[in-house]
Amino acid sequence: MTKAPAERRHRARWDAFALIVLAAVAGCTSRGPTPERAVGDAASPAPTAQQQADDAPPAAAADPLRSWNAGDAKDAIVAFVARVTRENGPDFVPPAERIAVFDNDGTLWSEQPMYAQLAFALDRVHELAPQHPEWRVREPFKSVLAGDTKKALAGGEHAVVELIAATHAGVTTEEFDAIVRRWILTAHHPRSGRPYIEMVYQPMLELLAYLRANGFKTFIVSGGGVDFIRPWAGDVYGIPPEQIVGSRAKLKYEVRDGVPRIERLPAVDFVDDKAGKPVGIQEQIGQRPIAAFGNSDGDFEMLEWTTSGPGPRLGMIVHHTDATRESAYDRDSAIGTLARALDEAPKRGWVVVDMKRDWKVVFSFEAQ
Amino acid sequence: MTKAPAERRHRARWDAFALIVLAAVAGCTSRGPTPERAVGDAASPAPTAQQQADDAPPAAAADPLRSWNAGDAKDAIVAFVARVTRENGPDFVPPAERIAVFDNDGTLWSEQPMYAQLAFALDRVHELAPQHPEWRVREPFKSVLAGDTKKALAGGEHAVVELIAATHAGVTTEEFDAIVRRWILTAHHPRSGRPYIEMVYQPMLELLAYLRANGFKTFIVSGGGVDFIRPWAGDVYGIPPEQIVGSRAKLKYEVRDGVPRIERLPAVDFVDDKAGKPVGIQEQIGQRPIAAFGNSDGDFEMLEWTTSGPGPRLGMIVHHTDATRESAYDRDSAIGTLARALDEAPKRGWVVVDMKRDWKVVFSFEAQ
Repeated sequence: MTKAPAERRHRARWDAFALIVLAAVAGCTSRGPTPERAVGDAASPAPTAQQQADDAPPAAAADPLRSWNAGDAKDAIVAFVARVTRENGPDFVPPAERIAVFDNDGTLWSEQPMYAQLAFALDRVHELAPQHPEWRVREPFKSVLAGDTKKALAGGEHAVVELIAATHAGVTTEEFDAIVRRWILTAHHPRSGRPYIEMVYQPMLELLAYLRANGFKTFIVSGGGVDFIRPWAGDVYGIPPEQIVGSRAKLKYEVRDGVPRIERLPAVDFVDDKAGKPVGIQEQIGQRPIAAFGNSDGDFEMLEWTTSGPGPRLGMIVHHTDATRESAYDRDSAIGTLARALDEAPKRGWVVVDMKRDWKVVFSFEAQ
Repeated sequence: MTKAPAERRHRARWDAFALIVLAAVAGCTSRGPTPERAVGDAASPAPTAQQQADDAPPAAAADPLRSWNAGDAKDAIVAFVARVTRENGPDFVPPAERIAVFDNDGTLWSEQPMYAQLAFALDRVHELAPQHPEWRVREPFKSVLAGDTKKALAGGEHAVVELIAATHAGVTTEEFDAIVRRWILTAHHPRSGRPYIEMVYQPMLELLAYLRANGFKTFIVSGGGVDFIRPWAGDVYGIPPEQIVGSRAKLKYEVRDGVPRIERLPAVDFVDDKAGKPVGIQEQIGQRPIAAFGNSDGDFEMLEWTTSGPGPRLGMIVHHTDATRESAYDRDSAIGTLARALDEAPKRGWVVVDMKRDWKVVFSFEAQ
């Protein structure tokens, strides 16, 4: 039977979202629940950008981009900000139009060895398992519970769709917010053993603060779920919920037993990746950014849309070149594939940040 | 033939949007293009809230709500703001959570005798007619061109869908932005003869500024098209594009002849009305507001969602009671029907603003 066009579009949205998550298959290490991820194991939250600014010694505070080494990337940022903020200058941009957009995974925090949101989904399976005895014999849940992530995700898109539906839906938006808040404070990154919120890039925190100090509004435009990022982005990045754009589940407002609620449905409403990023930007931000920061081909269209407007524009790609301090990957990686955007960066004037060369520190905890 | 569920949903979105616009049928006066709406007839833009604050004499400036008469409505606003801003008080709300949402049509500006967006669509038909000779013999365009709005809209939802598709799609988002900007500066309200941007309510401009001065973020949550409001809401209301939530057309990003563009498709993506308002709020604002301002049953769910959260909440309904200075209508009006929200206001603690009694002036031009 031939599917109706709208049905096919609906299915296509699921597939697109599943593909984003599936990219995480490669490089996944088998993992079960470990003591450090147990609920209640409260970790100290990472210092916020503001706290870090407050704590900085006076000498270091003189350079707002102190974790950036001198070089082309740092120069490009400083020169761009100087151009657009110089009043009466030929390239002056009024503050209302100083819109900067940032991808999240791989641009503001680590995405290797797997997206944090997938780690969250896998942890949720463990947490919800007691209420789902049938999962003990049903894939992909059976393999997740056995700690075999690779086998769990071997079911492809269908497996991912099942995992996301089972772990991201069937709760209200406020319940989901609380679940994410609890997880982000207690879960630990599988390689560093650090809380996820410490896996943010110190140079990018400084860049966010530097842009805001110069009248920019900073936005996240992520392929990840918007409701997975919003609960902690205020504390960690200094970015309020309405300035986070991401992929979305379908939502339904209803009054149940006299109590108004917004339910998360097991259906994908919007995939904010690739050509979806400019659409998400227009829908939610409503104007074309003048600066865009990404790290993968999923950010290509966002960079293209941002930098093809008139006047001064800044497009920047974080290139993961540092296997010692973080990870080294680009065109052959299933997560954060970077090929076309890297190839076209020179002719498009996009600045490539060489993480190893351009960043004095990657994570704030390195200095400890 | 039975339609597939997804197709039915798609159709339902169109119908819902058409119904919003169709409400404008009642009360429509026949109108054709008139000289004062000709393109190029630049009207003075309405003073912005900031300009008005700057222009105000020192004595009047002492009361930020100077166009509000003393009474319960004004008292409720001032008391609510005092409660949530009193540091160390029991009801203190941090600035990041001081989210206030405003309906647009009938709450911030006039919606009678027809929605401005419908007037815009009708004007667009006249403007585009030379490129569409077939419209001379095809409804609903034929009647629009003959100046018979009632007859044009007699075709019901189908007619409205045709009008919106023909006048709001097939252009890029940036072209549409420019079209709206030009229209809003040159079109005039059919009753007052004033530019539309002067049809905003002076007391509500003061309320927006008062809330912002007290650390609130102000948002518009409108059943109207988001891209119809954004081009002028910054100047008129002091609200930036990302703080406007509204109904949306489907968008498509593409590169055509080497130029990136976002095309407005002739399809409705989201209807931000009734139960859609809390969903639109969650999608775009990402947190539950603490204050909501509406004027019709289309705002019921937004008021309900806002005021049913914990802690101090303010729900307010602008009741159109002033036939002399503006319009008097509620439960029997097809535009801005107000029945259930008015009936339930007392038990829900929603404050009803009696426009005639509570507003010293309605429009800023009254004082001239």
